[in-house]
Amino acid sequence: MKTKLTKAECSSNLKNVIDALYVLNGKWKLPIVLSLVNSPKRFNELMKDVEGISPKILAQELKHLEQNELVERKVFATTPVSIVYEASEYSETLKDVLRTLSDWGAGHRKKILGR
Amino acid sequence: MKTKLTKAECSSNLKNVIDALYVLNGKWKLPIVLSLVNSPKRFNELMKDVEGISPKILAQELKHLEQNELVERKVFATTPVSIVYEASEYSETLKDVLRTLSDWGAGHRKKILGR
Repeated sequence: MKTKLTKAECSSNLKNVIDALYVLNGKWKLPIVLSLVNSPKRFNELMKDVEGISPKILAQELKHLEQNELVERKVFATTPVSIVYEASEYSETLKDVLRTLSDWGAGHRKKILGR
Repeated sequence: MKTKLTKAECSSNLKNVIDALYVLNGKWKLPIVLSLVNSPKRFNELMKDVEGISPKILAQELKHLEQNELVERKVFATTPVSIVYEASEYSETLKDVLRTLSDWGAGHRKKILGR
């Protein structure tokens, strides 16, 4: 039975989802965050983990994620200098979004392949 | 304490999230589904509800959502003919994704405005 929302709840939900997608839009931001939630990584390690992303797009998405405080860029004064990207503490707030998306993706694949 | 995933779990999660975003990508698909989950709507009603979307993009996104069986297009033989879009039963599987995104959007707005 569909639980009916009030008009006000409905429009505030809609605004929240639009706001969330404004920050998280595109097909790469959430996979990058998920990859870093699993372990901090250098640029090239991220390139390998998030299959199909180009260096230019990865650099651009990392900058957006840093601006939204979801990713932190750590510079180590080694020789040569090494840069490691980490999921920020704030990115933990995305845990439920990532879990439900992952569950839905798995279910959708079963539905599509199940035919 | 971050619950560590095994390598296999991590890559399968990543693939699931990438698959989900392949279907749901862009900033309009989920808001359209949410609007229809709340009530079936004609094209112009959807245009009003999902603020900022253009007619061309709405028509395109509705077609993708129909192909992925998330939206149904109902034609009524009135004069003139009337067309109503409805969230499909399958779109209910997106309930958790929509809820967690909505919660995150609300929290993120508080964090950004809270400064």
